Amino acid sequence: MEPLTPLHELGEFALIRRLQQHIELRQPSTVLGIGDDAAIIAPAAGQELVMTTDLLVEGVHFDLTFSPLRHLGYKAVAVNVSDVAAMNALPTQLVVALSIPARYSVEAIEELYEGLRLACEAYNVDLVGGDTTASRGGLTIGITVLGQVEAGKAVPRSGGRPTDILCVSGDLGGAFLGLQVLEREKQAFLADPETQPELDAYDYVVGRQLRPEARLDIIHELRELGLTPTSMIDISDGLAAEVLHLCAASGTGARVFSEYLPLAQPTLEAAAEFNLDPLTCALNGGEDYELLFTLPVAEHAKIKNHPDITVIGHLTEQNDAVNLITRAGQAVPLQAQGFKHF
Amino acid sequence: MEPLTPLHELGEFALIRRLQQHIELRQPSTVLGIGDDAAIIAPAAGQELVMTTDLLVEGVHFDLTFSPLRHLGYKAVAVNVSDVAAMNALPTQLVVALSIPARYSVEAIEELYEGLRLACEAYNVDLVGGDTTASRGGLTIGITVLGQVEAGKAVPRSGGRPTDILCVSGDLGGAFLGLQVLEREKQAFLADPETQPELDAYDYVVGRQLRPEARLDIIHELRELGLTPTSMIDISDGLAAEVLHLCAASGTGARVFSEYLPLAQPTLEAAAEFNLDPLTCALNGGEDYELLFTLPVAEHAKIKNHPDITVIGHLTEQNDAVNLITRAGQAVPLQAQGFKHF
Repeated sequence: MEPLTPLHELGEFALIRRLQQHIELRQPSTVLGIGDDAAIIAPAAGQELVMTTDLLVEGVHFDLTFSPLRHLGYKAVAVNVSDVAAMNALPTQLVVALSIPARYSVEAIEELYEGLRLACEAYNVDLVGGDTTASRGGLTIGITVLGQVEAGKAVPRSGGRPTDILCVSGDLGGAFLGLQVLEREKQAFLADPETQPELDAYDYVVGRQLRPEARLDIIHELRELGLTPTSMIDISDGLAAEVLHLCAASGTGARVFSEYLPLAQPTLEAAAEFNLDPLTCALNGGEDYELLFTLPVAEHAKIKNHPDITVIGHLTEQNDAVNLITRAGQAVPLQAQGFKHF
Repeated sequence: MEPLTPLHELGEFALIRRLQQHIELRQPSTVLGIGDDAAIIAPAAGQELVMTTDLLVEGVHFDLTFSPLRHLGYKAVAVNVSDVAAMNALPTQLVVALSIPARYSVEAIEELYEGLRLACEAYNVDLVGGDTTASRGGLTIGITVLGQVEAGKAVPRSGGRPTDILCVSGDLGGAFLGLQVLEREKQAFLADPETQPELDAYDYVVGRQLRPEARLDIIHELRELGLTPTSMIDISDGLAAEVLHLCAASGTGARVFSEYLPLAQPTLEAAAEFNLDPLTCALNGGEDYELLFTLPVAEHAKIKNHPDITVIGHLTEQNDAVNLITRAGQAVPLQAQGFKHF
């Protein structure tokens, strides 16, 4: 094995030069990328921009004992792109702020950057700037993404109306169960470092946790179907919290039918093994990064057979409140049980 | 004294709601601010955007023993706006990513936010989004600013040409000496906590360190004078490093005359007291956040009597190298001695 290069051997400017080598620019709106005081961007005529920022903090959002740095870089981009998608926009440029502990090797940072680069390629977004500094604590990754959308076509959370159908992409609860698997393997490893992790049976849920994808494909498909959601939000804190956010912003209530919640087979199996209710995982698990959106009920026919979009309920008048309708037909008020960082 | 509110009592969502209360929007291009998955921005026709990000990390960029949180919030915005100014653009929107240790009180974070708010007011920029998370280490503040400039009028580092005059705004070296004063007072306090800090005599240099201003006023004045710099950069790592960056990007050399370097009287006095060479402080001190820019020599008359712009030299052919010309007429190669974080 080649010896690793300590960060201090290289210094900040040389590190930045080295990381920049593999950065490609694809967006026609990027006039000037990395290397100046700021990037220059010329949005196409008739476009509006969306802008969002997300921070991933070691020990809060990720655990390097089981998050490979390449996956972490990819995820840092994906969670931001997911917010852009949730506005009905496509990402165009991003900037990356890294705070790196001195103990890291140059090669480790290159792995992280490779993940960033792969995600930029997958989501067709240009990395146009950044700031790289030391850290006295753990690793912190801050990403800010810019996206574009035809003027007037951005979709906020607030446009939902009573009777609109409530749709989700993909399936829910997997990322949370992936985290349970990883935590269990970590404990087993700490108890006996000779233990080999047994993750094969959990590929799906572990992948949902370590390498989520932003659902830009859904944005493209909705456009192809001629559909513009009336409201949209991405599911980062669990379905329950996001339905409540969307209803609060839209001034509506909602009925969510528990029997319709999309759960993948590996998620059901992992939930059974951990003795967890898969519905609770879907409602409160978090980090699924699927899209939750509403459509006028008249559009139902256009998506009802879509393999990757599920209608889970509909909006109601505000004073009907936000309820989960159980299989037995009971209405139970939805409650956000999102994690508290502090 | 009112008891302070621990962060965990409030939780993330309530904290964000509380911080948002005092946020005002001023920019006509802001369509939607805080509160959705992303902000929506509609730039005026014919404008290009600039985008830049900067991270301030506790223990690396600031020391809370002598940085009041309000000043820190202000500075975090100012250093980013300085990068926007260095592109010849005006800031329009920004997003803030905060990673906050659990030991902080809500009131402390409100102080930080008050500094952000004051800077947004001073620089006429809208705070349109953010992310607030816990930290397992110190406080980290990441800011990304968007600015606008007439299409084609952004000024990169690379446009300088031989014979262009080299200009700086304001004066140099003060921020570095301010840091020396603060470090000395900190040591005195640690040795004897009864010591009262004696900062009055150092108001100017301490102010340069704790509360730098981005030179948007210079951008406005250059426009009023009908001047567009051929190249520009902000002075964050010391004049020497920035002259070298500008020359490398422009493919030129430069002659910088030591006798022309602008030094304020309080900077000279503080340097004498600390037995430091004021020229070295100006060349390698860092954090002055003044602007370094070049103009065609034919424009010299327009700025030669400007009270806040100093001509310090001129660009040359590249093979003449980048030299400091001493009072005695000797040419000494300029060297960047910027700090290394790692």
